[in-house]
Amino acid sequence: MKDVVFDYARAARIGLPEAVFCEGKPLETLAELLTRFGQGGEHPVLFTRLAPEVFAALPETARAGIDYHPLSRTAWGEILPRQPGGKVAIVSAGTADGHAAWEAARTLEFLSIEQTMFEDCGVAGLWRLLERLPKINAHDVVIVVAGLDAALTSVLGGLTPQPLLAVPTSVGYGVANQGETARHSMLASCAPGVGVFNIDNGYGAACAAARIMRLLYP
Amino acid sequence: MKDVVFDYARAARIGLPEAVFCEGKPLETLAELLTRFGQGGEHPVLFTRLAPEVFAALPETARAGIDYHPLSRTAWGEILPRQPGGKVAIVSAGTADGHAAWEAARTLEFLSIEQTMFEDCGVAGLWRLLERLPKINAHDVVIVVAGLDAALTSVLGGLTPQPLLAVPTSVGYGVANQGETARHSMLASCAPGVGVFNIDNGYGAACAAARIMRLLYP
Amino acid sequence: MKDVVFDYARAARIGLPEAVFCEGKPLETLAELLTRFGQGGEHPVLFTRLAPEVFAALPETARAGIDYHPLSRTAWGEILPRQPGGKVAIVSAGTADGHAAWEAARTLEFLSIEQTMFEDCGVAGLWRLLERLPKINAHDVVIVVAGLDAALTSVLGGLTPQPLLAVPTSVGYGVANQGETARHSMLASCAPGVGVFNIDNGYGAACAAARIMRLLYP
Amino acid sequence: MKDVVFDYARAARIGLPEAVFCEGKPLETLAELLTRFGQGGEHPVLFTRLAPEVFAALPETARAGIDYHPLSRTAWGEILPRQPGGKVAIVSAGTADGHAAWEAARTLEFLSIEQTMFEDCGVAGLWRLLERLPKINAHDVVIVVAGLDAALTSVLGGLTPQPLLAVPTSVGYGVANQGETARHSMLASCAPGVGVFNIDNGYGAACAAARIMRLLYP
Amino acid sequence: MKDVVFDYARAARIGLPEAVFCEGKPLETLAELLTRFGQGGEHPVLFTRLAPEVFAALPETARAGIDYHPLSRTAWGEILPRQPGGKVAIVSAGTADGHAAWEAARTLEFLSIEQTMFEDCGVAGLWRLLERLPKINAHDVVIVVAGLDAALTSVLGGLTPQPLLAVPTSVGYGVANQGETARHSMLASCAPGVGVFNIDNGYGAACAAARIMRLLYP
Amino acid sequence: MKDVVFDYARAARIGLPEAVFCEGKPLETLAELLTRFGQGGEHPVLFTRLAPEVFAALPETARAGIDYHPLSRTAWGEILPRQPGGKVAIVSAGTADGHAAWEAARTLEFLSIEQTMFEDCGVAGLWRLLERLPKINAHDVVIVVAGLDAALTSVLGGLTPQPLLAVPTSVGYGVANQGETARHSMLASCAPGVGVFNIDNGYGAACAAARIMRLLYP
Amino acid sequence: MKDVVFDYARAARIGLPEAVFCEGKPLETLAELLTRFGQGGEHPVLFTRLAPEVFAALPETARAGIDYHPLSRTAWGEILPRQPGGKVAIVSAGTADGHAAWEAARTLEFLSIEQTMFEDCGVAGLWRLLERLPKINAHDVVIVVAGLDAALTSVLGGLTPQPLLAVPTSVGYGVANQGETARHSMLASCAPGVGVFNIDNGYGAACAAARIMRLLYP
Amino acid sequence: MKDVVFDYARAARIGLPEAVFCEGKPLETLAELLTRFGQGGEHPVLFTRLAPEVFAALPETARAGIDYHPLSRTAWGEILPRQPGGKVAIVSAGTADGHAAWEAARTLEFLSIEQTMFEDCGVAGLWRLLERLPKINAHDVVIVVAGLDAALTSVLGGLTPQPLLAVPTSVGYGVANQGETARHSMLASCAPGVGVFNIDNGYGAACAAARIMRLLYP
Repeated sequence: MKDVVFDYARAARIGLPEAVFCEGKPLETLAELLTRFGQGGEHPVLFTRLAPEVFAALPETARAGIDYHPLSRTAWGEILPRQPGGKVAIVSAGTADGHAAWEAARTLEFLSIEQTMFEDCGVAGLWRLLERLPKINAHDVVIVVAGLDAALTSVLGGLTPQPLLAVPTSVGYGVANQGETARHSMLASCAPGVGVFNIDNGYGAACAAARIMRLLYP
Repeated sequence: MKDVVFDYARAARIGLPEAVFCEGKPLETLAELLTRFGQGGEHPVLFTRLAPEVFAALPETARAGIDYHPLSRTAWGEILPRQPGGKVAIVSAGTADGHAAWEAARTLEFLSIEQTMFEDCGVAGLWRLLERLPKINAHDVVIVVAGLDAALTSVLGGLTPQPLLAVPTSVGYGVANQGETARHSMLASCAPGVGVFNIDNGYGAACAAARIMRLLYP
Repeated sequence: MKDVVFDYARAARIGLPEAVFCEGKPLETLAELLTRFGQGGEHPVLFTRLAPEVFAALPETARAGIDYHPLSRTAWGEILPRQPGGKVAIVSAGTADGHAAWEAARTLEFLSIEQTMFEDCGVAGLWRLLERLPKINAHDVVIVVAGLDAALTSVLGGLTPQPLLAVPTSVGYGVANQGETARHSMLASCAPGVGVFNIDNGYGAACAAARIMRLLYP
Repeated sequence: MKDVVFDYARAARIGLPEAVFCEGKPLETLAELLTRFGQGGEHPVLFTRLAPEVFAALPETARAGIDYHPLSRTAWGEILPRQPGGKVAIVSAGTADGHAAWEAARTLEFLSIEQTMFEDCGVAGLWRLLERLPKINAHDVVIVVAGLDAALTSVLGGLTPQPLLAVPTSVGYGVANQGETARHSMLASCAPGVGVFNIDNGYGAACAAARIMRLLYP
Repeated sequence: MKDVVFDYARAARIGLPEAVFCEGKPLETLAELLTRFGQGGEHPVLFTRLAPEVFAALPETARAGIDYHPLSRTAWGEILPRQPGGKVAIVSAGTADGHAAWEAARTLEFLSIEQTMFEDCGVAGLWRLLERLPKINAHDVVIVVAGLDAALTSVLGGLTPQPLLAVPTSVGYGVANQGETARHSMLASCAPGVGVFNIDNGYGAACAAARIMRLLYP
Repeated sequence: MKDVVFDYARAARIGLPEAVFCEGKPLETLAELLTRFGQGGEHPVLFTRLAPEVFAALPETARAGIDYHPLSRTAWGEILPRQPGGKVAIVSAGTADGHAAWEAARTLEFLSIEQTMFEDCGVAGLWRLLERLPKINAHDVVIVVAGLDAALTSVLGGLTPQPLLAVPTSVGYGVANQGETARHSMLASCAPGVGVFNIDNGYGAACAAARIMRLLYP
Repeated sequence: MKDVVFDYARAARIGLPEAVFCEGKPLETLAELLTRFGQGGEHPVLFTRLAPEVFAALPETARAGIDYHPLSRTAWGEILPRQPGGKVAIVSAGTADGHAAWEAARTLEFLSIEQTMFEDCGVAGLWRLLERLPKINAHDVVIVVAGLDAALTSVLGGLTPQPLLAVPTSVGYGVANQGETARHSMLASCAPGVGVFNIDNGYGAACAAARIMRLLYP
Repeated sequence: MKDVVFDYARAARIGLPEAVFCEGKPLETLAELLTRFGQGGEHPVLFTRLAPEVFAALPETARAGIDYHPLSRTAWGEILPRQPGGKVAIVSAGTADGHAAWEAARTLEFLSIEQTMFEDCGVAGLWRLLERLPKINAHDVVIVVAGLDAALTSVLGGLTPQPLLAVPTSVGYGVANQGETARHSMLASCAPGVGVFNIDNGYGAACAAARIMRLLYP
């Protein structure tokens, strides 16, 4: 631990505080980091991809005072002070995309940006999207989360004028190929102006939304 | 040429006559085949993927009496006798998908099956599909033709109860990857019961439609 | 659970009722869904990819009255009312393809469509297919299920005039590549008019057969 | 041509007017479209991926009054009326990325959004980026354009707080793999909140920037 | 040229003389090599992948006395002295596989090994293979040449007891993927004991047959 | 079990008896098959890819009288009657390739064909191959087994005149890619006449050797 | 064990002693090798990729006197005698790259070559690299270790004149693709003269550094 | 041209002067650059990947005084002042690898580093390498250049103690896959300490050799 070089200056430089990616880190390191940053520590820090079984295995002292959310695998001790404004809509194709959709939602919550979740908007049942469209378009930025063929991206991209951020998910089997098909579909979308993120990277889309919010409400 | 072993029995066996795939065949072979089967020859034969520049380079005698269609790259001397009934809708995302959509249409015409073409139904402008949906659903079988992310497949698959046959196209660049992304998207479509064909293979989808028609109108 | 937006209208719209893909869903959600739809619930619902170890871990109350089939990993509380007619042949290369072949069979059973299973028809022992061919061809629609090189597809496609629906399976190792080689082979089949589905997707092929049956026996 | 279904409503719906993707379209179609929309026609239309040799082959009448830019392969007859404000920085790794960087610049010009081009900022000569950083950060939105390993993305993403839109380019050979390596690098960037577009898709990034500008200056 | 280090010892070491792979070699080098080895030169040499347009562009002096075969793209000045015995059957799926099938045939001819060609044995018309099977099995070694899904491999592998050498071809489009699908299918074949060669590598299969013949007739 | 259609005629047809691929088969099926064919049953049957932990989990009655070899994961009750002659050399790059090398050796033993194993011949220590070369070349057929870059194939292919059968293995990590790199290297080998098999498929190479032996010693 | 052919001559031939790759080797073999070479045995031997759980499962006798390092998964009984000079800098992007960075460090320690570790130099926080650059450049050779987009490679390659050896790591998820994206980025780096190694292969980079050191300090 | 930002400081920073990658640059730009740097200009500049047909199309004034080498596609006006010492051996598998081998040789010549070329060392004729090995090992650094399966890398890596730099080439067809198989083989080589470069990147290997030479002869 003593060797980790934190980039505290990041928040000042790009407006986004440090986050700790927990996957693959040993238990002791995670325990130490949660203890140090969890309970009203020096800096608000977001922990991502912290699996439920890993969190459960941490010592009680490390988990004390931590706000942990198993589906999104995120945790924090405290969040950033509330920002002046701006709202983000998160639109997902199915409940199976929840891990990524909620990672985006929780990251926004940590960044004190308001968000609304719209799940089960998959276009094979088109009415589910269409009847919620006016509410979706009342937000400043839209994050779309989908796996399989990610067809929701092009449909929504043709119906919303807002900045649209697309997160492919690893949902599905066979040709879904751990999210590669969704990722390719989103990048090849015929709707103009859709920015794409890594597979299951709800965190990344939330950060991109935060960059836009910071511009809108400086 | 004298060594080619034709499978004339195919029509009797599976209800679909021989077709000649022209790509890569030398000019002399194509000239001989068109002369032999083109002008009221022994058997009606469909020629596929016969490029305009190849057709133009054939001797006048080989081209005489041939019905040639450059966009679909198909040709024939005569078509099959008219079938009792059945109608196929061909729905494509954009005019750029025309080569495959028209290959399907021309194959159906050769097989004497009625078809209607619905172009420019890409879902980034959703109204274009929705306002033509009742007409599309009035057909027995629907062929969907799309490139890029092929999002049209899932949307249409959720709106039509008819057998749905999906042809990915090689339209696009970069991540569209010569139709691979469209092919993967169609196979991973969240709409249930969509059969997929090789990239740009309008001929295959038309043959599948013919197999269904033969069942409906024996 | 309260947030899941069911698409009950799907049966009316496309003739196929909702199905629940169980893979990756948490135990509590599955328990709630099986309890709600399993025992004479509001709507007949098919559960797919419900692994034996997951089913075994469900509470007794959720499993009561459920018809569960481990090989196909399918379950239901009740099936649809019997349809007027039509028969589907399911032809598989080997018993190792059973998980996908029986997923197709069970989906058809749920949809109340008659089917016959023909296993072990792999073409390396060609007589096994040839001696059963007349029986296979007495069905309206043929589903072919095969892994490895899926050579059965082209052979059968050249011997049956019926609509042919092809399901690649993830059987094999090394170059079989979790079903990718079978999928590519089926899409590149030299037999005309074969529609292909995702790897192991017996459910999809059964739905496509149902779309055809609905047309034949409206 | 008479069959093309234009989506004129798009500008009203999503704030971005129709664009014509010229690659693969026959000369006659392009001539007709340029004649119809080029010279003070019904709607301002942007033509993308119109290759110099294709433009040169068009009849004089179609080219009259057209503002054509060969490097970016873009053309128009008239641009949109000027927007109230907002500035976009386009930062590219090398002059070889010019085709995509200038496609973004020209699209922004067509949309009447101000932009500044910063070329040759590749990080193997880090000072070239660092000495221009204050100027870059004075813009509202930053578009980064790079091929090969696209290392510029992570460096810039750690130095700018603005929304960052990343366009991989097909520059390079061998393992650069027509832009796939750049695309993968950008999606895997360790800088948070970078939205990625298709390979060489400067048009898409410009549209995304326009979506943000429309929010900033409604 | 003076720097080329020939491996004349190869024939003594492994029983196969040097061959010159012509693709990518400059015209002057090819001219010099054909002149040196073509007309009763020091060693019999086989030239492979010598394209017709390249051969036509060579000076008359280099082409004099050369036995050139355009379809197989092979050439030689003289062949090896006749071997004591052994016969190879070459079985191909379609005439489109001719380039590879005839490369095998010509290589065998150069090595003075008897061969018979059986073309158009694709399994979508199964009778074409079955009626020629007894003749095929009367040969010592069987080479199978096929593109697309290469289904012929498994069928033939289950019907012949002879050593079976499989050459995938680059025939087809889309998912055929320049022969990759055929190659994968052959390697995953459910017929036991099939050795596979590089795409279009008829030369390699002929050399493998020669290794067996040398063993049979030492 | 009662539904399995065995291909007993295979031995008569192609000279190779049935083999049972055990991977993925349920314990009960394996128990029944081993009981039926293991102890002096109707036909000698080879069981392949039967993992040690699976074999250990079988009931004592099924394992009785079975000759089981854990490294090669093969088993049988009895082997074929001894053949008149012929010897196979198995040459592997390292002991880590043992699972595939010994699968080949055990399959040959089951087929009553003599073999010699030469392990640790990897070419990074070239003397290990060179000093054993004369012994290797005293065999009729050579099987080469290697993972990683499989460089042994080309070196050996240039030093032995015998039929050479190449088995890539899944040894290695990262770019070794579960044997794909070894497979590609073997197929691209610059040594002429090397037939390649699926990754880890020692069984296949042994069957190919048996096809040659049957020809040599009919 | 008795069959393993050690290449003791390697140290004399190429200046690098034998190493044992432990992954996939059975426990008994590892126990025997550690006992034989661990405790002042015949030759100093480096054990690589020896997982902590495997080491823990070895008998006490095999582990006695062994210097084991869990993060790098390396072990030895004794190291080589100290070399005259030369220093290697190991620069890694993040602590998550530690397994490969420390494999390089431990291999150098085994070879008695001095090294310094510089962790957390990822370029998204550029100052972390820049402030340590003078120290890094005071070493003879630089090893760079990075996952994800490996952008550190190009930045460092443009700032150091020393030989630069690049190790991609399997850190990350989704598009990081088990290190493939990092590997491609490093090979496509715009900095000139960077040699790349297999994914996570810190051992290989250390050996390359040793080859250079042997030249510098013969 | 006026916008190009040259990195003149590179030579001072990393010891390697600027190089101009010519592929894809317009003729006018190349003409201007050759005129500016070719004839005793401000800085010695190396031009790489300058195709013969492009060089021939340049105006006479731009080509005057240029040392152009068609096979390696390199050019310069003047080279660097001679360095104190050091010799590089370039070892290639076949003459077909000449384009990359000579790019390395010419880059070294430009950098005033001595080199010797050893062509036709492919291991299928092993004696060609072995008889030249003592001469090769008399050099300080060895560059190995090979396509297809690149087996030469492992063999040479086990026979030379010198730093070994490996350049895969795009030689071959089918599974050679434009050099990808060679690249993978080199990265997976069982010889320790081999650094790998991009496909056909002789320039990169030469720069890496120069980094080592600068260390040896400061």
